[in-house]
Amino acid sequence: MRIRVIHGPNLHLLGRREPEVYGTTTLAEINRRLEGLAAELGVSVYATQSNHEGEIVTWIGELVEGWDGLILNPAAYTHTSVAIRDAVKAVGIPTVEVHLSNVHAREPFRRKSLIAPVALAQISGFGASVYEVALWGLVRYLRGAR
Amino acid sequence: MRIRVIHGPNLHLLGRREPEVYGTTTLAEINRRLEGLAAELGVSVYATQSNHEGEIVTWIGELVEGWDGLILNPAAYTHTSVAIRDAVKAVGIPTVEVHLSNVHAREPFRRKSLIAPVALAQISGFGASVYEVALWGLVRYLRGAR
Amino acid sequence: MRIRVIHGPNLHLLGRREPEVYGTTTLAEINRRLEGLAAELGVSVYATQSNHEGEIVTWIGELVEGWDGLILNPAAYTHTSVAIRDAVKAVGIPTVEVHLSNVHAREPFRRKSLIAPVALAQISGFGASVYEVALWGLVRYLRGAR
Amino acid sequence: MRIRVIHGPNLHLLGRREPEVYGTTTLAEINRRLEGLAAELGVSVYATQSNHEGEIVTWIGELVEGWDGLILNPAAYTHTSVAIRDAVKAVGIPTVEVHLSNVHAREPFRRKSLIAPVALAQISGFGASVYEVALWGLVRYLRGAR
Amino acid sequence: MRIRVIHGPNLHLLGRREPEVYGTTTLAEINRRLEGLAAELGVSVYATQSNHEGEIVTWIGELVEGWDGLILNPAAYTHTSVAIRDAVKAVGIPTVEVHLSNVHAREPFRRKSLIAPVALAQISGFGASVYEVALWGLVRYLRGAR
Amino acid sequence: MRIRVIHGPNLHLLGRREPEVYGTTTLAEINRRLEGLAAELGVSVYATQSNHEGEIVTWIGELVEGWDGLILNPAAYTHTSVAIRDAVKAVGIPTVEVHLSNVHAREPFRRKSLIAPVALAQISGFGASVYEVALWGLVRYLRGAR
Amino acid sequence: MRIRVIHGPNLHLLGRREPEVYGTTTLAEINRRLEGLAAELGVSVYATQSNHEGEIVTWIGELVEGWDGLILNPAAYTHTSVAIRDAVKAVGIPTVEVHLSNVHAREPFRRKSLIAPVALAQISGFGASVYEVALWGLVRYLRGAR
Amino acid sequence: MRIRVIHGPNLHLLGRREPEVYGTTTLAEINRRLEGLAAELGVSVYATQSNHEGEIVTWIGELVEGWDGLILNPAAYTHTSVAIRDAVKAVGIPTVEVHLSNVHAREPFRRKSLIAPVALAQISGFGASVYEVALWGLVRYLRGAR
Amino acid sequence: MRIRVIHGPNLHLLGRREPEVYGTTTLAEINRRLEGLAAELGVSVYATQSNHEGEIVTWIGELVEGWDGLILNPAAYTHTSVAIRDAVKAVGIPTVEVHLSNVHAREPFRRKSLIAPVALAQISGFGASVYEVALWGLVRYLRGAR
Amino acid sequence: MRIRVIHGPNLHLLGRREPEVYGTTTLAEINRRLEGLAAELGVSVYATQSNHEGEIVTWIGELVEGWDGLILNPAAYTHTSVAIRDAVKAVGIPTVEVHLSNVHAREPFRRKSLIAPVALAQISGFGASVYEVALWGLVRYLRGAR
Amino acid sequence: MRIRVIHGPNLHLLGRREPEVYGTTTLAEINRRLEGLAAELGVSVYATQSNHEGEIVTWIGELVEGWDGLILNPAAYTHTSVAIRDAVKAVGIPTVEVHLSNVHAREPFRRKSLIAPVALAQISGFGASVYEVALWGLVRYLRGAR
Amino acid sequence: MRIRVIHGPNLHLLGRREPEVYGTTTLAEINRRLEGLAAELGVSVYATQSNHEGEIVTWIGELVEGWDGLILNPAAYTHTSVAIRDAVKAVGIPTVEVHLSNVHAREPFRRKSLIAPVALAQISGFGASVYEVALWGLVRYLRGAR
Repeated sequence: MRIRVIHGPNLHLLGRREPEVYGTTTLAEINRRLEGLAAELGVSVYATQSNHEGEIVTWIGELVEGWDGLILNPAAYTHTSVAIRDAVKAVGIPTVEVHLSNVHAREPFRRKSLIAPVALAQISGFGASVYEVALWGLVRYLRGAR
Repeated sequence: MRIRVIHGPNLHLLGRREPEVYGTTTLAEINRRLEGLAAELGVSVYATQSNHEGEIVTWIGELVEGWDGLILNPAAYTHTSVAIRDAVKAVGIPTVEVHLSNVHAREPFRRKSLIAPVALAQISGFGASVYEVALWGLVRYLRGAR
Repeated sequence: MRIRVIHGPNLHLLGRREPEVYGTTTLAEINRRLEGLAAELGVSVYATQSNHEGEIVTWIGELVEGWDGLILNPAAYTHTSVAIRDAVKAVGIPTVEVHLSNVHAREPFRRKSLIAPVALAQISGFGASVYEVALWGLVRYLRGAR
Repeated sequence: MRIRVIHGPNLHLLGRREPEVYGTTTLAEINRRLEGLAAELGVSVYATQSNHEGEIVTWIGELVEGWDGLILNPAAYTHTSVAIRDAVKAVGIPTVEVHLSNVHAREPFRRKSLIAPVALAQISGFGASVYEVALWGLVRYLRGAR
Repeated sequence: MRIRVIHGPNLHLLGRREPEVYGTTTLAEINRRLEGLAAELGVSVYATQSNHEGEIVTWIGELVEGWDGLILNPAAYTHTSVAIRDAVKAVGIPTVEVHLSNVHAREPFRRKSLIAPVALAQISGFGASVYEVALWGLVRYLRGAR
Repeated sequence: MRIRVIHGPNLHLLGRREPEVYGTTTLAEINRRLEGLAAELGVSVYATQSNHEGEIVTWIGELVEGWDGLILNPAAYTHTSVAIRDAVKAVGIPTVEVHLSNVHAREPFRRKSLIAPVALAQISGFGASVYEVALWGLVRYLRGAR
Repeated sequence: MRIRVIHGPNLHLLGRREPEVYGTTTLAEINRRLEGLAAELGVSVYATQSNHEGEIVTWIGELVEGWDGLILNPAAYTHTSVAIRDAVKAVGIPTVEVHLSNVHAREPFRRKSLIAPVALAQISGFGASVYEVALWGLVRYLRGAR
Repeated sequence: MRIRVIHGPNLHLLGRREPEVYGTTTLAEINRRLEGLAAELGVSVYATQSNHEGEIVTWIGELVEGWDGLILNPAAYTHTSVAIRDAVKAVGIPTVEVHLSNVHAREPFRRKSLIAPVALAQISGFGASVYEVALWGLVRYLRGAR
Repeated sequence: MRIRVIHGPNLHLLGRREPEVYGTTTLAEINRRLEGLAAELGVSVYATQSNHEGEIVTWIGELVEGWDGLILNPAAYTHTSVAIRDAVKAVGIPTVEVHLSNVHAREPFRRKSLIAPVALAQISGFGASVYEVALWGLVRYLRGAR
Repeated sequence: MRIRVIHGPNLHLLGRREPEVYGTTTLAEINRRLEGLAAELGVSVYATQSNHEGEIVTWIGELVEGWDGLILNPAAYTHTSVAIRDAVKAVGIPTVEVHLSNVHAREPFRRKSLIAPVALAQISGFGASVYEVALWGLVRYLRGAR
Repeated sequence: MRIRVIHGPNLHLLGRREPEVYGTTTLAEINRRLEGLAAELGVSVYATQSNHEGEIVTWIGELVEGWDGLILNPAAYTHTSVAIRDAVKAVGIPTVEVHLSNVHAREPFRRKSLIAPVALAQISGFGASVYEVALWGLVRYLRGAR
Repeated sequence: MRIRVIHGPNLHLLGRREPEVYGTTTLAEINRRLEGLAAELGVSVYATQSNHEGEIVTWIGELVEGWDGLILNPAAYTHTSVAIRDAVKAVGIPTVEVHLSNVHAREPFRRKSLIAPVALAQISGFGASVYEVALWGLVRYLRGAR
């Protein structure tokens, strides 16, 4: 079972950026922790980060074969990108949208996700461990739990 | 570690009610599965269901001592109950709001949660296993993962 | 053929309450008139009233077997209760929503019904005889008229 | 007792038009059924159809003497015609607005009626038999039931 | 100097219709009074009424030559007719939009005129004498007063 | 018969200010023309101008005795002054609101008048001669024409 | 003179709940202070609390005889309960709506009260002493002061 | 292959009407050019114009047999006519909605089409040749191109 | 303890102005009654009225020293004056906003107060005695009651 | 005559992606068909695809000389890209915006185009042949047809 | 070159008023600093402050001759004064609107300026030195820099 | 002191693009003039342009050390890019947002900036010299002026 992980814009700044909102964990540590859990669960993960909406669209478009699920943190593009939404819908891969912070407790424009309506699930909150919660839940779901 | 689970209105109908949206698992099975996972994780859970907004407010108001977290499926009250929001905020217990279906893919009025802004996290989707995802993530969070 | 009738909040005050809007007929008289028409039509009716949203949700949830139709006056909950909507949708019983007054001629917030979209039909106006109009129409409908 | 019935735009297409929404009954059959019930109730009905907003306005304007009630299906004009609203208000005849389908369950723009606020009552749903429900209720009302 | 006067829908009911809003003067009297003032001012007027949006569009479309101004009471079509607006704009004749009642003091939907933005002026209020005020002002304007 | 005329903010600039919108007539000329027409009609007028909302409120508050009507050009305060609205309503004097330009053809915020709902009539357009149209109509109205 | 006092949802938590917003006074102390002032003013008060919208509706429906006024803190139901509004309107008892905190300085959704439009007065702010301000004002009002 | 062409309100004024927006071509020339292209493509066209919403509704209602497609310029009715929308939907004929000018570059109220959602395609812009573009595309589509 | 009282626009008309809304008490009587209560409570009050937003801003700006509280009836400026809001916020004096009538039961635009969010409390209703209720509550508050 | 064709995000997935919405034709086939028609019409076309908003902006910015027209399918960027709108407006090249599906029949957010207001024309519907319709119309337009 | 500077309501309180928002500089110091920079740049400035909207309107209306530019801090009137907007537009003097704080980072109602659309430029932020930035830029602009 | 300057999408077209809105100065000239002023002020500037939102996000993310301020013209991305907003907020560098034209006088969608709320200041207007005004003000601010 192969799971793709895509981190959206500004997430390469994690750890430096507004730690009172996003915590002090870096993206490298998040990926390491994800790989640890993946090993435990017997699956593989492949994670990359991009600031470019178009690049994220391209990456999603490539998930046509050989991939079982996608964990996507669209970050700022959550609220503005119809293109990423269309890409997720087009490839039809089970997708879990994640957010480090509880977006519902922030500025109103962060409460609306253009991508969630075409995703399998959305998780928001839990800090950096949200990726692990998503992986745990997604793998369980792909193995048949409902 | 003791976790309270509260199921909101109409959830006693699970299994009978619109299975194409909510699946065929009953509430009893959900509770059993939760207890199984709780045992695995070394915590205890206590779950009840109510159709009454006021009763849910009362139950949350009792979570002042001896409880470590709350998993709350406010169901229809998600979108209309300021009272439940105030109760969650008042007792200040770490709360994960869950929804069986992906509320972002349904009627527009289901996309707005009055409760999420005062919760630790929100998970929507995954079907009946959303409770387990919430429990797994909440316990991890309470044990210090961020 | 058995028809359930549920009267919502404040309807126990009928006759006393703002007679210029709601008329002088009491709830007991409405129920008597309904029973008279039911006898004429060869069906039975069972009517109760509640001020509690949760109790109405529970009553509707019980209409799974042995009932053919529901006449529901959600009163104030018409405009605020997603829970009653979900209950009507869950049990899937043919439901006629009724209002004593013409809600379209009153405050703007009374024009929107959360429940009507999942009902078979909505009748608003006619004063206290709206229940009889609903019963006549519902029975005709259940007997096959379209 | 003489009751006028006015069918609005496109209703001459009934039976052919989107049968999954409007059923297979034709307008001629509806009128025949209405006349049958009218005979039973001891009243007379006179029904016509028009695609012209102006013609409907003119017809309503003629209901000044000799008519006791109006059953009006404004169809598409329900949502846009201030002129029909003004005509109904001007002649002051007790009017029941009817809709074959449950307009509350369709496109959002069909939920707002410009005419209902000046009508005696509105009935929406029941399919083709909605005219009979309206006639039964209107006659009862005109004979004094409240 | 020739002035066209067009009365919109339901205005043939004037005198009968909601006298507390529109007064007791009939359309025939309004036309007579207008002709009296026209004679005084040395101009001619030609007035007709229609309930048909399309007929009003056609009449306006004919005002291409030999006419100096238009007094238009679009009545209910004020708020919904893009077609009449386009007709007024197309022929480019100086047009005064009039309303018997003060539309600003009535239902909110009556406050927006689609036609006023392409008219020379709008007068609302004064009861039946609004036509005379419009004629007096329009003639003065056409003779050069600004 | 004594008529009060109040010119609102910036109207002292008339003639200089945006002539393509407001024309080249000065306020002094408008007042002179008004006095001419008043003499013709056998009434008296008294006109003043102010840039101060509070001063206009005070002036209107003084129209309790000895005055028969008010011609008010609230200019910019049309759209923002609840205080002037309250003053007009409080003294209850028949008031005609006037605007030199057709406000309906300008910026959207100029289409809403807070004052018109409590006025007898509103006239917008006709350029500087709008005051004369208002005086002619108001006097006619005060002498009984409806 | 007998005054009913009804405390809405979550107010039983007063003193524990977000003291920086609601202060440290408990509900018992508020009731004691109210009784002290009532004695001083020569009236009696009877106070209860409920988390149930339906129960509050029922309590208000009982205030038909023998009661002179109602002090109501609808708390969270202020913003969502049409049912409580209908109950207050139905029994027609002079009602003062109170809020411990200044609701106008909090989340936007707390600024709209469904109940205030049918109340005699609304007081918001002053902390726990708002009940005493309400009692002092209500008694004065009932004794004839305007 | 027979194609129906319907021109909406005010289009008989083409050539005279606001040439800076609509050009100088008359409706007769448009029809001639359409017939020329139709001959080239081996199909027949039949074109008429009406200012009456009801007449257009009736014409569309007649396209039940013997017609293959409809080119419809609803003009001003584009934005207000639910009746034309219902007619197009009812007969189910492939319909191309056309506009001479680019409606997206004009007043905001012209950007919303009630009819487009039930049409096969919408073309806006190109001036008078928009009809030819529509005919070329519609015929190609009817012959199987996708 | 010195309390400032500021009466906003049109309040000098009290007693004459719309007595069915505002009662028959004059401003002089209100001030006399306030002084009576102040003497009883052992505080002093100083009250003035202005129709000028700018003058009210100036008066509030002077409350920097020697004053303990402000009772402010902003009247029409409640809904439109950011300047008065800024003044109240700038001087930081405990302020009670009062309204003679229940503003929540009037036109929608009267329900929004720009000033309340920066005030200590708002009282609306009770008629002319609202000032006394405010004084009683404000003094109690300033003496430490919460 | 040289025509530029730009395909926006996700269009490289055509044929795979939601065939029930977008059909089974691939982008390569569309380009081939376009070249065929171009040859027939005696013009040349040059087509490329990009997922990057910035790249599309750059490509449009290069169309300053040597190009006669642009056929642009902005896909998801239609609804969100002010940058593409600014680019089209800046170079001032005649542009036809195309959409494979009828965007007016899909999600509401797809009905608003930021780009159409600065385009020559917009065509939506016809499936993959929309590009050919656009090319046929654009060439005709560039050769002088209006 | 003569530059007029107008400070709006509450700015006389600068230094005392909410220093965390507006800083500790007084208005006198701002004027002194402005005069220093003016001398450096070889121009003259004349600055006054008013709490009265009407007075500001009057001052702007006087800038018809002998003045080259205006630096205007409308403060609270930014968001509510159509009258000041009209005055700026009427005299047509190059105007720079300034705000001490970044209005875009404060309450939503502070983000909309009625005056900016008729100004040459708007600067918001920089604290008290915003006036100097405005003077430097305005003089440069008036001397021909674009 | 080192100042970063970032020019957003389409700004490479400056001079060619809509000169009536943006003037005839090219980007190269703007950069030269900025460098001239920088030398005068004793600071250095480094300026680049990009059409890619993602590239701008990346550039801002690099401003963590060695940079003192940022002058940012987000152009079209001003209104749509949450990602650039998040980048500015993340690195926390003092940022002045600039616009060549007065955005407040253009299309409504250009009045809302997503970025301004996290910037130090916003300047809009002044044409190409806005960059110099920003540099002058930013340097002054960084050297301590408030």
